[in-house]
Amino acid sequence: MTSSLKIGLAGLGTVGCGVVDILQTHNDSLFQRTGCHLEITAVSAHSRDKKRPVDVSSYKWSDDPLAIASDENVDCVVEMIGGEDGIAKDLIVTSLKNKKHVVTANKALLAYHGYELAKLAEENGVALMYEAAVAGGIPVIKTLKEGFAGNRVEAISGILNGTCNYILSDMQKTGRDFAEVLKDAQAKGYAETPPDLDVDGVDAAHKLCLLTALSFGVKPDFEHLRVKGIRAVSATDIQFAAELGYKIKLLGAANRIEGRILQSVEACLVPESLPIAQVDDVFNAVSIEGDFVGDSLLVGRGAGAGPTASAILSDLVDVATRNIRPVFGIPASELADADWIEPEDLEGRFYLRLSVKDQTGVLADISAILRDHNISIESFIQHGRNPEQPVTIVIISHDAVKRDIKAACQVIAGLPSAQGEPHILRIE
Amino acid sequence: MTSSLKIGLAGLGTVGCGVVDILQTHNDSLFQRTGCHLEITAVSAHSRDKKRPVDVSSYKWSDDPLAIASDENVDCVVEMIGGEDGIAKDLIVTSLKNKKHVVTANKALLAYHGYELAKLAEENGVALMYEAAVAGGIPVIKTLKEGFAGNRVEAISGILNGTCNYILSDMQKTGRDFAEVLKDAQAKGYAETPPDLDVDGVDAAHKLCLLTALSFGVKPDFEHLRVKGIRAVSATDIQFAAELGYKIKLLGAANRIEGRILQSVEACLVPESLPIAQVDDVFNAVSIEGDFVGDSLLVGRGAGAGPTASAILSDLVDVATRNIRPVFGIPASELADADWIEPEDLEGRFYLRLSVKDQTGVLADISAILRDHNISIESFIQHGRNPEQPVTIVIISHDAVKRDIKAACQVIAGLPSAQGEPHILRIE
Repeated sequence: MTSSLKIGLAGLGTVGCGVVDILQTHNDSLFQRTGCHLEITAVSAHSRDKKRPVDVSSYKWSDDPLAIASDENVDCVVEMIGGEDGIAKDLIVTSLKNKKHVVTANKALLAYHGYELAKLAEENGVALMYEAAVAGGIPVIKTLKEGFAGNRVEAISGILNGTCNYILSDMQKTGRDFAEVLKDAQAKGYAETPPDLDVDGVDAAHKLCLLTALSFGVKPDFEHLRVKGIRAVSATDIQFAAELGYKIKLLGAANRIEGRILQSVEACLVPESLPIAQVDDVFNAVSIEGDFVGDSLLVGRGAGAGPTASAILSDLVDVATRNIRPVFGIPASELADADWIEPEDLEGRFYLRLSVKDQTGVLADISAILRDHNISIESFIQHGRNPEQPVTIVIISHDAVKRDIKAACQVIAGLPSAQGEPHILRIE
Repeated sequence: MTSSLKIGLAGLGTVGCGVVDILQTHNDSLFQRTGCHLEITAVSAHSRDKKRPVDVSSYKWSDDPLAIASDENVDCVVEMIGGEDGIAKDLIVTSLKNKKHVVTANKALLAYHGYELAKLAEENGVALMYEAAVAGGIPVIKTLKEGFAGNRVEAISGILNGTCNYILSDMQKTGRDFAEVLKDAQAKGYAETPPDLDVDGVDAAHKLCLLTALSFGVKPDFEHLRVKGIRAVSATDIQFAAELGYKIKLLGAANRIEGRILQSVEACLVPESLPIAQVDDVFNAVSIEGDFVGDSLLVGRGAGAGPTASAILSDLVDVATRNIRPVFGIPASELADADWIEPEDLEGRFYLRLSVKDQTGVLADISAILRDHNISIESFIQHGRNPEQPVTIVIISHDAVKRDIKAACQVIAGLPSAQGEPHILRIE
């Protein structure tokens, strides 16, 4: 008797059609790999008549996705509806309660409800898998759960949003400013309208939440995550960074420091000589530091039908071969409440961009303020001068505490010669 | 009743001690992850009294590693002895026949005997796993077998030897020549004496064999692999490559072209703007192209106690959770005999370095020879000139067939003005 995995697909958009495509195209090799027939036994989506790139006419159709959660002819439900609550959550909860395995690409939902859903899955003895929720083209969930299982992860960080990386890469290549590049990216379909979820860092933050939970054995906790997007990054920042040997990337990062955890999503300066700095356009990257494995970096496409569907297949193949591990690496009941470090307590090097009127004594004022806040200067750049006109000054600090940097910047912003708030970026 | 995995370790060198270290350090978290007690029940090595960084005194000792293969108190044998035949092979064969799972880091042995050993493992219903055999810090075996299971791999290539990458990186940084850097690397312990296995590309070739088998569903076949190491790479090559925007890397590469497979290990020019070009020092990298997932790159440490032991743990955790897939991704009985493409049939761009006497008409001769071999020139560099003295000329070709390049170079080498054989490098 050969085994089979009966799959119900909820959502037939780009990703859903990608999953159908793989299951149709690679059916034979999937059987070779698993010894199990992966077959679609039910599908559900908004419109049955919508034109799709794959033929779904032979599958049992229901307009109500919840029907799949109760379908006796479904072993595993693939949720590709999206949204952090509502029908997607109902579908997952009902499926798990009905002892059906669940595979999802829904990062927002897991960032908010991952802990309860993990408990529910484990109580019911079924899988809840989400390789597609974080950087589809990168096998990072599997690597954290399985490949690096012999490690204690010390740090994880990554380029987790393809839209932001595309925009920053384009700004870097063309010298254009954020607003212009965003408009272009929207026209090309690389950014959504409104773009907030991406450019404000929220999408990257959802993903980081899951990586933090997996890396450190803590409950995913979106509420405690400080998020800053890329709207404030200017062409000037990118130009100065390049001059100093850096690229600007939106990084989601989490570190373990003396048993506590620091996590943040923000634009950072990354040394050009690091491989991650060369990860451009819509590509994502995740860097992991383990106590035995050392440093590693995984690079791949973050979104799109193919990469996301490939990640969903990775999960389906695991379900088919009964390779089912705890949702966040260790049993949900053993996940800890993290002891979070305030991002203000972070120590590191910082990039400050100031706009000041070029008056006598300004530099002396700024230097004194920095000194008074325990901040010493590594580099200082000012190009040209134009008395009485605003000039841009860029300062790279030595190691300093972010709280001190912010306080110093507030004082600097109060100088009569200052033009607006200084812009602060962390240096990775 | 909790389950347990009884582990027998054969070989207690650097890697063996690393495995002991992880099993001792992370015993609790390994149980959390797997629900299984991973316990060492037997060990074997050359000398019991050797000073080791871990305490092995409490484990059952045998001087003969084969004793482990027949020990009733061992479920899984970890082979860390090395060598493509002899005791390592005996140990693995006996263990598999005795229905014990086997985890090994032995790339040479698998490159030569992988197919028969895979058949033996699958006939006996046990695992034969080797994540540590290829780039320990990179979860590439797991990614090919599991993470990218929904893909047909089209191409795979990588920096698979840390010693070569260290030497090439050092040559790049310091401008020194191969022999000098090698000597230094040997003194520092980054290269062995003799260094042949590494610098002649053999070690990288062993690893590529396994990646090719996994990627394309073919029997590993070391005999059909053309291997060229890095001895012929000069400081001049590195300098010219840098000027043209490239770094020189030893790449193992395999491609699927119209159902046939091309595989090679050779030094190549890699565009500096690619992340893989920034993978320096002892780091390894593997780039994989799948039909759905697109391009991905995995970077990590290739050797050393920690990364290799981490990879062995990945396999042990899979055995403990019974995540046992076919040795080369699909059942050994279904692995095909590859239809290999001769490397000479490869089409691509090439770098040629020629040394010629700077006489009138030399350039006209070379240009005519290239034209007569269907090779058109993309760039041409010659620095300075010194009539009647040898000068170095570098030519970058447009797409051309390697056979034509080699034939043209042979004719060029026969010119009265030529000084030795031209040096050919592929451009990635």
